[in-house]
Amino acid sequence: MKKKKKVNASILIIGNEILSGRTQDKNIAFLSNWLNQNCGIMVAEVRIIPDVEKIIIENIRSLSKRFNYVFTTGGIGPTHDDITAKSIARAFKVGYGYHKEAYKILESYYGKKKFNDGRKKMAKMPKIAKLIYNPSSAAPGFITKNVLSLPGVPSILNSMIENCKKYLVKGLKIHSNTINLFTVESNISKQLEAIQQKHKKFVDIGSYPFFRLGKIGVSIVSRSVSKKKLEIVKKDLLKMIRFKKIKILKT
Amino acid sequence: MKKKKKVNASILIIGNEILSGRTQDKNIAFLSNWLNQNCGIMVAEVRIIPDVEKIIIENIRSLSKRFNYVFTTGGIGPTHDDITAKSIARAFKVGYGYHKEAYKILESYYGKKKFNDGRKKMAKMPKIAKLIYNPSSAAPGFITKNVLSLPGVPSILNSMIENCKKYLVKGLKIHSNTINLFTVESNISKQLEAIQQKHKKFVDIGSYPFFRLGKIGVSIVSRSVSKKKLEIVKKDLLKMIRFKKIKILKT
Repeated sequence: MKKKKKVNASILIIGNEILSGRTQDKNIAFLSNWLNQNCGIMVAEVRIIPDVEKIIIENIRSLSKRFNYVFTTGGIGPTHDDITAKSIARAFKVGYGYHKEAYKILESYYGKKKFNDGRKKMAKMPKIAKLIYNPSSAAPGFITKNVLSLPGVPSILNSMIENCKKYLVKGLKIHSNTINLFTVESNISKQLEAIQQKHKKFVDIGSYPFFRLGKIGVSIVSRSVSKKKLEIVKKDLLKMIRFKKIKILKT
Repeated sequence: MKKKKKVNASILIIGNEILSGRTQDKNIAFLSNWLNQNCGIMVAEVRIIPDVEKIIIENIRSLSKRFNYVFTTGGIGPTHDDITAKSIARAFKVGYGYHKEAYKILESYYGKKKFNDGRKKMAKMPKIAKLIYNPSSAAPGFITKNVLSLPGVPSILNSMIENCKKYLVKGLKIHSNTINLFTVESNISKQLEAIQQKHKKFVDIGSYPFFRLGKIGVSIVSRSVSKKKLEIVKKDLLKMIRFKKIKILKT
């Protein structure tokens, strides 16, 4: 068995509706959690860009070179502002047109009579693309080289995600450990930095303020590909917490 | 009076907690709406990146050249993973150290005895920075050249936003008009494209599926800096909607 390596991905959200603040994105957190939990793939960068062909092309070229995978969301529907498929074909300088299998799937879903031009457009994609099946609303996503294109509607995206799995090489899962404390960051920043320094090769420690039950608190989140190292860091953290007499919030 | 121009901005979210999916971002939609409504500034790109100095520096350099303003969120607290201020100083090759006024504000907020090293760190920033006052928790944000740095905690960011205004040149506000229809996108995609083509110089038309009361619908959103042009497009849309006998959802 080959040893697993670190595998990363970027997410490219294509859509004026997210940029303008009209719609609250829900796909980033879902994709990031799913990829880490199920495939050991770490999301290393996210970009949100408008529905402009030139900008989509630039970003596809740059991100597909820098990361193992790129996930695009949005812009694969039937309307004029859905230009993701065409832009990806242009980014990779490959042909664009009807994908036979996608055409068949959509034709049988809508029926020949109702299979109008708008619906037919959803069967157009880069010629070299392979399909990502859609169990909710038929219109498939697709993978072009290392770029996986999914729809923007969260419920449909979520229903398709398992069908991405076969295209993905699994990597090392990042495990995490969270301790919630009733204290303020500045009370522990010095000690936390010392613990981070001691373990910096294997563990990342983050500190995030929270407000709960009218009280201020801090979540200490340690992340590592090694569960063993996480346990060692946890012991150091608990020692510091006991020494400083800080109350832990049980969740 | 000078004629207003288009002014744009990018948002740079600095934080492993957003990238990992642990925390759902709420700042993008807030900033984007606030900037358009209050300053006529359009958010043209968003990036989410990890707490890594080299990556922060690269992104600050690239985005500050390409956009009128850059808004950073996150990484300005007292802990070791808060490296935004130092990274921005390095990106612009300017000095980094205590900001006198910030130091005074924090010292008087915490009191001399409780003003520990973690808290003092929040007074360190690029030497050329000017302060963005924080009415919630004292620790100020700051502006370095065209880069405005705000905290990641949404309630604190929201409380500081009015204090950004004095540093911003106002641009043309983008107005929008939304019509919600009980139909599917493919039923109107052809007509919508024709209307978009006719008005493409002044108006952007977007089409977004929604699900409400168990029914599928489509929101048609038109955006323009000209209210007059929006009215003309609205008339064309309503004509098409009547012709196709589509029901409008009153909200």
